[in-house]
Amino acid sequence: MKLAATLSSIKPEMDQVERKIKEITSAEPSMISHTSSHLLEAGGKRIRPVFVLLASKFGAPMQKNVIEVAIALELIHMASLVHDDVIDRATIRRGKPTVNDLWDNGTAMFTGDFIFARAVELLQNLDEPRLHLVLSHTIHQLTLGEIEQLKDRYMIGQNLFRYFRRIKRKTALLIASSTELGAISSQCNDEEIKQLKRFGYYIGMAYQIIDDILDFTASEKELGKPVGSDLLNGHLTLPTILAIQKDEASLSSIEAYFKDPTAYNREQIIQTIQDIGSSSAIDEAYAWSDAYLDRALIALEKLPSHPIKKTLRKIAIYLGKRKY
Amino acid sequence: MKLAATLSSIKPEMDQVERKIKEITSAEPSMISHTSSHLLEAGGKRIRPVFVLLASKFGAPMQKNVIEVAIALELIHMASLVHDDVIDRATIRRGKPTVNDLWDNGTAMFTGDFIFARAVELLQNLDEPRLHLVLSHTIHQLTLGEIEQLKDRYMIGQNLFRYFRRIKRKTALLIASSTELGAISSQCNDEEIKQLKRFGYYIGMAYQIIDDILDFTASEKELGKPVGSDLLNGHLTLPTILAIQKDEASLSSIEAYFKDPTAYNREQIIQTIQDIGSSSAIDEAYAWSDAYLDRALIALEKLPSHPIKKTLRKIAIYLGKRKY
Repeated sequence: MKLAATLSSIKPEMDQVERKIKEITSAEPSMISHTSSHLLEAGGKRIRPVFVLLASKFGAPMQKNVIEVAIALELIHMASLVHDDVIDRATIRRGKPTVNDLWDNGTAMFTGDFIFARAVELLQNLDEPRLHLVLSHTIHQLTLGEIEQLKDRYMIGQNLFRYFRRIKRKTALLIASSTELGAISSQCNDEEIKQLKRFGYYIGMAYQIIDDILDFTASEKELGKPVGSDLLNGHLTLPTILAIQKDEASLSSIEAYFKDPTAYNREQIIQTIQDIGSSSAIDEAYAWSDAYLDRALIALEKLPSHPIKKTLRKIAIYLGKRKY
Repeated sequence: MKLAATLSSIKPEMDQVERKIKEITSAEPSMISHTSSHLLEAGGKRIRPVFVLLASKFGAPMQKNVIEVAIALELIHMASLVHDDVIDRATIRRGKPTVNDLWDNGTAMFTGDFIFARAVELLQNLDEPRLHLVLSHTIHQLTLGEIEQLKDRYMIGQNLFRYFRRIKRKTALLIASSTELGAISSQCNDEEIKQLKRFGYYIGMAYQIIDDILDFTASEKELGKPVGSDLLNGHLTLPTILAIQKDEASLSSIEAYFKDPTAYNREQIIQTIQDIGSSSAIDEAYAWSDAYLDRALIALEKLPSHPIKKTLRKIAIYLGKRKY
């Protein structure tokens, strides 16, 4: 689902975001234009631009930085996905072949670099220093998250702290930045900025946890990629961390798989993925995402009365219940 | 040779640049700290910071942005080298193992991303909008140059225009930005900024051409990597483009090699590399770099009288004659 399509209050701005992303990525030499257009067509929920635009509604209307910030955040997100897919040797994302699969790893690496550079270029036009501070901190943390994720691959002994710190850096901070920057660019006051940032942060944490749950519980068709991709790629996420605390069989199956992912019995690890997907670890993981969603709703309550609060509440609840 | 060590007029500032780069790269989680420190220790000529600092001497002394710009440009350069080495599967640079060789491609990709993000973070602190405009344009062009270089790999029919545009994007613009940004951050006037930028641009073009010549004529020890690496990696540079216009034997040898680099007779391509290195194409390529150096010196002459002009002239002449 394209979240944006359901949000009539920001439709004109979202159309502008889509158009400008298309412009930015297609006005370039043929190779980049192909890889970038391919990425663009592969779609995505555009959650970051949606949150920038919705948060901006709490402030002064028609502020010039808002659209640029929305586009830049989506580009940063796209760039990081392209690089992630290289690491995971992913062949499919959102039901379409990845750049590294259609072309090669080098092309994907430089496509990511290019898209990130365009984001930086957009950001340079912003005349509000606070936007720069937030963004540069977020980008810094995002790259640390990438490195951490790589380092933590195929590592069995990870605690919850490590997982939460990683998803904070990889996902939640970028979503927190979306609401925060939307608020800053539309001149919200400090309290509004603070609560919108918190809302984004908690939503981001919940969003990633649910993503990690769905990787076990949704179908390949719904996911647009194989079920259990995270575990197959050596990423230990919340459902697994919770499951192996109690389930010795899953623990030893994953240990064996991580020891030698190529040689290991594939049927057995697929079975482990199914076991985790139907275990109580899923309910526990949902309890974590619900706790984050609750905190997001509390932050929302602290915001002044505004029609957009209802929209944000709906999105929070929708994200909490989404099936893919 | 570390160029910086010979330049007493900017020694304190260069020490500061080195120290801050070290700080930036070592204050991070262990893995990044290892890969980045490794890069730092592998050294480099630090040409970009040197040019920022020297150009800044034409303006007002002790301007706060100068050091940040110098560091950021070196970080951007380092990040692009790390990604280049992934593409070329380079195992050695400056006589030391590359990040992709010591660790792996994924680590190298994310190390590049991280270093680039730190550069962006530094840049966000600059309060002069012109610095941002120049830098974002340069970064954009740099990533286009990367993509072009990848696309042009193993492609035999390249004209000079294509080569010059590529080295402009990959090298010359970053060096032009060094002198330009040094001048802007120290409040030089428009004419000074213009001539310093031109000086940097022409030096950058000459520098890359000479780099491409030395790849054929220097020894493995001098280069810190195998002789003829460019051609072996499928990159057609000026000496080759000029050589194959006249030398049928080299042309057909390279054609055969590019057709199947893995299966081709390695001795034959090594012989071709030697043939090009002792051919008249080398003199012709030097004529091109000399022409660019001359233009750099003309730009220098247009600058007002200043002791640093002598230093810049010396560097230009030194770079024109360098042997590695």
